[in-house]
Amino acid sequence: MIMIPRKNWEAEMNYQRFFEDAIDQLHAERRYRIFADLERIVGNFPRAIWRANGRAQEITVWCSNDYLGMGQHPDVIAAMQNAAGKMGSGAGGTRNISGTSNPLVELELELADLHDKEAALVFTSGFVSNEASISTIARLLPNCLIVSDELNHASMIEGVRRSGAEKKIFRHNDVAHLESLLQAAGRERAKLIVFESVYSMDGDIAPIKQIVELAERYNAMTYIDEVHAVGMYGPRGGGITEREGLADRIDIIEGTLAKAFGTLGGYITGTSAVIDAVRSYAPGFIFTTALPPAIAAAATTSIRHLKRSQAERAAQQRQATRTKQVLTAAGLPVMDSATHIVPLLVGDPELCKMASDRLLGVHGIYIQPINYPTVPRGTERLRITPTPFHSDQLIAALQDALVETWDALGISYGSAGRPAVRESDRVIPLLVPKSGG
Amino acid sequence: MIMIPRKNWEAEMNYQRFFEDAIDQLHAERRYRIFADLERIVGNFPRAIWRANGRAQEITVWCSNDYLGMGQHPDVIAAMQNAAGKMGSGAGGTRNISGTSNPLVELELELADLHDKEAALVFTSGFVSNEASISTIARLLPNCLIVSDELNHASMIEGVRRSGAEKKIFRHNDVAHLESLLQAAGRERAKLIVFESVYSMDGDIAPIKQIVELAERYNAMTYIDEVHAVGMYGPRGGGITEREGLADRIDIIEGTLAKAFGTLGGYITGTSAVIDAVRSYAPGFIFTTALPPAIAAAATTSIRHLKRSQAERAAQQRQATRTKQVLTAAGLPVMDSATHIVPLLVGDPELCKMASDRLLGVHGIYIQPINYPTVPRGTERLRITPTPFHSDQLIAALQDALVETWDALGISYGSAGRPAVRESDRVIPLLVPKSGG
Repeated sequence: MIMIPRKNWEAEMNYQRFFEDAIDQLHAERRYRIFADLERIVGNFPRAIWRANGRAQEITVWCSNDYLGMGQHPDVIAAMQNAAGKMGSGAGGTRNISGTSNPLVELELELADLHDKEAALVFTSGFVSNEASISTIARLLPNCLIVSDELNHASMIEGVRRSGAEKKIFRHNDVAHLESLLQAAGRERAKLIVFESVYSMDGDIAPIKQIVELAERYNAMTYIDEVHAVGMYGPRGGGITEREGLADRIDIIEGTLAKAFGTLGGYITGTSAVIDAVRSYAPGFIFTTALPPAIAAAATTSIRHLKRSQAERAAQQRQATRTKQVLTAAGLPVMDSATHIVPLLVGDPELCKMASDRLLGVHGIYIQPINYPTVPRGTERLRITPTPFHSDQLIAALQDALVETWDALGISYGSAGRPAVRESDRVIPLLVPKSGG
Repeated sequence: MIMIPRKNWEAEMNYQRFFEDAIDQLHAERRYRIFADLERIVGNFPRAIWRANGRAQEITVWCSNDYLGMGQHPDVIAAMQNAAGKMGSGAGGTRNISGTSNPLVELELELADLHDKEAALVFTSGFVSNEASISTIARLLPNCLIVSDELNHASMIEGVRRSGAEKKIFRHNDVAHLESLLQAAGRERAKLIVFESVYSMDGDIAPIKQIVELAERYNAMTYIDEVHAVGMYGPRGGGITEREGLADRIDIIEGTLAKAFGTLGGYITGTSAVIDAVRSYAPGFIFTTALPPAIAAAATTSIRHLKRSQAERAAQQRQATRTKQVLTAAGLPVMDSATHIVPLLVGDPELCKMASDRLLGVHGIYIQPINYPTVPRGTERLRITPTPFHSDQLIAALQDALVETWDALGISYGSAGRPAVRESDRVIPLLVPKSGG
């Protein structure tokens, strides 16, 4: 939590000055964020119009989470337009009070099928799906212990916090540490293991099979976040759990419609009983307007396409691999990544911000800087996400721009590899941005 | 919080059986909810196709929060379709990482103008806007005391809880009680008064002017939820605060894009400093994918239309008044309401559910039952929301259907008026639905 000192000489609270000070503090810490104003161009993805200082300029986006470009797919757009034309622009109510549209019902059936589960539940965002589901499940279970990976996303951390349940943090992907925590809790106690398949800042993958085996041995429930994997891994886009044949051994698979599927919203899948319990008890689900039918229809179209088509996944992997190879060959410090995510080490927050600004201003290449606390200090990076639409030519242009920028700013070409030690069992301040924002 | 007893004879947790029991308990308490599967029909609002038990049937929706039918407006739909065609179906990232689209920037300018404030911030839902903003503001302010109306919406209660700040609940709309709490806290202490303009279950309006005066006298910040008023009140649809000329004396005005504006999302408006602080510090804002440009474009079109046009507001008020008159003349127990919301007292949860079922099954009229804990026991009701598109003929048909239902089920025609006593300072269980779900 940020502490903004109250001026001693003030007799009473000056709200306006207080919030001005809070913003000043962000500037002072170089953590003030300016959002790039973008207009993506359908048919020309990943190109977009960037507006700043009264100017508009065409640029290339290299940090989108529209990982497969499905947000630009003609069928997906047509589904959205058709549903809007038939059913309107909004849902008109909560799920319970007139907001459950037929496209939303179909979407949930589609998602249950995607992960081969009995049921699915859609939320207005992945953030809400994690927060509402984890907190509700752990709150319902008597005396539940949550066992959570230290690098889990902010939305999962919020869910854990809000549950009020006891929590234990295990070192990132450390199954021995996880086992010791499960063992200490005992088979009898209700336990929920919360983790991700793909960690989005490093691009590494959890040892899902070992975690599942531990869960079975110690009788724990498992909750996996596959938001950076659904659509992109597995023969039908069911994520890493599908690719590794482990989906049926995981209790709850959470995913998003807003990344590889190119639309908006989050979801969970699991047994009918668990899904029905979250549906019935989670305030963040109950008291919110449903997703518009047009969004649901677009998402269903996207999921169905990616269940059949391997082309997007293959092209994404090919271009991601090529990007890693080309940048590595140029001597740039590409960090280890087992996935489509290509992190490039800068190792200094100022340089990272300057590199991003230079890439955008000079080269028309947009890559948002990733600084502490999103990643550990000293591992500040550019996080590059190649899609099927980042052509070899665009990769070559990226390489040239990065080399020019590295040279101009004197950034180290030194070896990258995996980032080193992290604080184990760290406490994550609620108000401090972490991971993915 | 629900307590589902764990079976004593079980040596360890049986998760599947546990969640089945949780659902069984809802059935036993008659609180299990079945969502109506609807397909709204553009051009024929408020008609929709209802699917159940393998049948599809056209019905009239009388409980939509698409209060003005703007979700069906040709200009709004066209804006959504055009933006989707130009910019795609999704945002592709969080606001900070490539997700800030130009339509979203324009939408925030439009919203700031709507409420005559310096700045606005859009969230993926009204729920998140309340939860994230209230919790962030109260957490930033040192030793903040939140003073909250007892009938505030679940999303506000979540924001208050999550802030970790001390809270005091004042009796609904009771300014004397509010004053005593402010006085006890003293001018020096940071205080945030949290309340709504229109309370959606009763349709009553807060004494905003008196609350504002108290806030000024005791140096408190004010946060008002106008989700059931924006678009519908005030010469430009700026809500009750605009109608009463009080917007400039309220610190934060919160609203929704998902009710009268017919799309999706929530927002806050206020000074640049406050908005920037929430933007910079709220996890529920930072770590979530932005609203799609198509949704933002549709919302902006809807807001602009309702800034100029009085026709929808006038027609809504006319049809709401007529609905009250017609139902009252038929002897039906219409409860007092100062707004477009028409609550009809049933006073018994079983009868309320049966009335709703009969209206839908026999008369093709859909009005969701509102039972405890959404409203106090003994005040179970049907909550009717006439729109400009509920014609005199539809109102007449509604009256006939209600009278038939009242007679068939033997529901009391007795007088309604305001619901009586409520628990003051009640504790609201996190998992128990309340208000608007």
